[in-house]
Amino acid sequence: MNNNIVLYPGSFDPITKGHQSIALRAAQMFDNVIVAIGNNPDKKSMFPIEQRLRFVEATFQGVPNIKVLSYNCLTVDLCRKENIRYIIRGIRSGMDWNAETAIANANKLLFPPLETLFLLTEPHFVGISSSVVREILTYGGDVSAFVPQQIVNML
Amino acid sequence: MNNNIVLYPGSFDPITKGHQSIALRAAQMFDNVIVAIGNNPDKKSMFPIEQRLRFVEATFQGVPNIKVLSYNCLTVDLCRKENIRYIIRGIRSGMDWNAETAIANANKLLFPPLETLFLLTEPHFVGISSSVVREILTYGGDVSAFVPQQIVNML
Amino acid sequence: MNNNIVLYPGSFDPITKGHQSIALRAAQMFDNVIVAIGNNPDKKSMFPIEQRLRFVEATFQGVPNIKVLSYNCLTVDLCRKENIRYIIRGIRSGMDWNAETAIANANKLLFPPLETLFLLTEPHFVGISSSVVREILTYGGDVSAFVPQQIVNML
Amino acid sequence: MNNNIVLYPGSFDPITKGHQSIALRAAQMFDNVIVAIGNNPDKKSMFPIEQRLRFVEATFQGVPNIKVLSYNCLTVDLCRKENIRYIIRGIRSGMDWNAETAIANANKLLFPPLETLFLLTEPHFVGISSSVVREILTYGGDVSAFVPQQIVNML
Amino acid sequence: MNNNIVLYPGSFDPITKGHQSIALRAAQMFDNVIVAIGNNPDKKSMFPIEQRLRFVEATFQGVPNIKVLSYNCLTVDLCRKENIRYIIRGIRSGMDWNAETAIANANKLLFPPLETLFLLTEPHFVGISSSVVREILTYGGDVSAFVPQQIVNML
Amino acid sequence: MNNNIVLYPGSFDPITKGHQSIALRAAQMFDNVIVAIGNNPDKKSMFPIEQRLRFVEATFQGVPNIKVLSYNCLTVDLCRKENIRYIIRGIRSGMDWNAETAIANANKLLFPPLETLFLLTEPHFVGISSSVVREILTYGGDVSAFVPQQIVNML
Repeated sequence: MNNNIVLYPGSFDPITKGHQSIALRAAQMFDNVIVAIGNNPDKKSMFPIEQRLRFVEATFQGVPNIKVLSYNCLTVDLCRKENIRYIIRGIRSGMDWNAETAIANANKLLFPPLETLFLLTEPHFVGISSSVVREILTYGGDVSAFVPQQIVNML
Repeated sequence: MNNNIVLYPGSFDPITKGHQSIALRAAQMFDNVIVAIGNNPDKKSMFPIEQRLRFVEATFQGVPNIKVLSYNCLTVDLCRKENIRYIIRGIRSGMDWNAETAIANANKLLFPPLETLFLLTEPHFVGISSSVVREILTYGGDVSAFVPQQIVNML
Repeated sequence: MNNNIVLYPGSFDPITKGHQSIALRAAQMFDNVIVAIGNNPDKKSMFPIEQRLRFVEATFQGVPNIKVLSYNCLTVDLCRKENIRYIIRGIRSGMDWNAETAIANANKLLFPPLETLFLLTEPHFVGISSSVVREILTYGGDVSAFVPQQIVNML
Repeated sequence: MNNNIVLYPGSFDPITKGHQSIALRAAQMFDNVIVAIGNNPDKKSMFPIEQRLRFVEATFQGVPNIKVLSYNCLTVDLCRKENIRYIIRGIRSGMDWNAETAIANANKLLFPPLETLFLLTEPHFVGISSSVVREILTYGGDVSAFVPQQIVNML
Repeated sequence: MNNNIVLYPGSFDPITKGHQSIALRAAQMFDNVIVAIGNNPDKKSMFPIEQRLRFVEATFQGVPNIKVLSYNCLTVDLCRKENIRYIIRGIRSGMDWNAETAIANANKLLFPPLETLFLLTEPHFVGISSSVVREILTYGGDVSAFVPQQIVNML
Repeated sequence: MNNNIVLYPGSFDPITKGHQSIALRAAQMFDNVIVAIGNNPDKKSMFPIEQRLRFVEATFQGVPNIKVLSYNCLTVDLCRKENIRYIIRGIRSGMDWNAETAIANANKLLFPPLETLFLLTEPHFVGISSSVVREILTYGGDVSAFVPQQIVNML
């Protein structure tokens, strides 16, 4: 691979064990992984972008080939600017697949050289999502089974 | 069954004929059914919790083994507190199935002894949903084909 | 067909090349097509109804058997009032199919003589949706591959 | 519609109440419906083609605008030969939708002017299929709820 | 539950850890579980019915409320004969769901009092199926991760 | 990537333009691609293994980093033997996704280091499949839109 770098974009509101696993698997496959946190001001998030960034950075601290950043533009424009040709996304279910293919097809129209690779979420993580974490936090519940160990005490 | 009680949780905003049918089928299967109305203050609802509760109570008035309550916590915490081991949910379509399995998998992570049972919605009710009822009501339409007879005059 | 007229309802916020294609295919099949823009004041839209109407009218200017209107009632009530017996909708994916069948089943309950016909979106348009267009516009991107040529300069 | 004729192709092994309903709905929409029974010698069928033909003919006897035939070629070649531009198919579920769109996409590649229209199976018929009928018949069960009244005594 | 007995029907060609888990979960919920092995002579199986029966019996030996039998009739006729009102089935994915709902809807038409309950397969078993086991066995591979420990040495 | 080689397994009965496109996209991403034709004697194929091999070889002749072979064992055993850690598969639809995830989950259980990567089929190829090609060939139709140009004259 001449251009061996992959983007892992998402909202990460907050990052989960499922996200962590996908990024680490990508880091085994690619020389460099960029975890890119979308900062769309029109979308409401539970955690402000600075906090989401801190969570993701804490999660991958010490992993040499994972870099973290936030962005505030179309994902394809980030790829163009950073000369990235691969996006990676995890899929838990048919619902995810439908949503992800809609995005991948749109990105392909906007930037044809871009390839989106899909990985299957590991079975023991299929019940995990940021929205479940947010709901548990709303009620003051325990999310330690859902988020990376590194951020449990930061929430 | 030592612990023959099942929870039927939902928003019931408002209750529909589809919900009614699932609860009555559950009441044939279990000694006791608890219809539990989620009162999540972060989620906008058309009907305030008191009104949703009145609708559900009116629907099941006279059914001796169906009890109605509202709750304001995680569903798994309600189950823990009430010593409930079964949740029942109706499924109309693949879309429902995808959404429900995400919830069931998360609940299993949060409270492993909990079992979620799925029933197939009866075919003549698959076109019915609370969101359709709300849309019809918004335009002043007739919802008598969609909601239990007991609440038609209360809307 | 005694009553050879078909309704193509939607939000069209804004109209895309995918919508355009469905309406033109319907116009080959039916004597008359009504493109009906739902003006639900409870739903937030990026473009106000007047603008969405101008976009759709510009798109089908010169197509003699396509008529454009906006409406502010249940779709079935529009059909009843205009004596329409057919609705046509395009489907891109399983996600669309699930959502559309929920609507079609509800409409059938509300107005039994109504038939909903589904067309498959042409493969080169499956990546196109109004929500993608809105996201691109939010970031000032180029939507000329996604919307009808007639409206590119109007956005 | 200049060419107001629609093809309803299938194996009809044997015809069911679900098939009957789709054809009758199509007969309300189009001037002429051709129910076309595929006679692929490589596919095993329970009923030989002559018998399937008799069942379908008996079902639509007296319906003036439904014509029945069998064919032994690609469906698109039948359409080309008979100058047909529309195919109609019923869909019961996401499983059907996936299978049908694969066929419709292939047919579009083979014969671009062809349009496939999809109708939603009526809810009370979603449990009906030829394969269920064949299984019931294998065990000598009663299929009168599954097949047209006209053919119950012919099975 | 007046009639607290549930049927778990299947081909069990051969029984897997996934099947075992569903039956054991059912045995916690119901007073009695009948694991019923369909012996349809028209369907090819890798293992003859006597062997499938031995595998299933070995799997549940010592579980007092699980009874095993084979049957050669429609599943609904077995239920009628044995006065059973509940069927239980596990679901791994949307593909399973689609197939299972087709069967459940057909069974409901054939025998309206019958209820089919669905359980979600546990995540660590979603990769397991009888057809995968058969394929591994064809090539002489190791199936000990896929079948109950009780039958590993019997294969 | 230390071990920059990917396996693209399949039946290729026969190879299609869709398969060709996936392999070529993989050849851009990985240093080496192995197109591996499964030769399962229990599965009926239209073309014998020697012919399928010739078709695939003709298709990728002149592509330096694509190697072709046939195999007669479990796919995971081929990966173990050849020290391969990646499988790539194309997905056209939700139906494909369901089938592919079942296989990927089973492979993960059999050989945990193995990663399966999924690519979305390009939209203009979604109507193409080996089974459609076989059906067209059965009736003597023209498959030039479906198979690689290199093999049109070989069929």
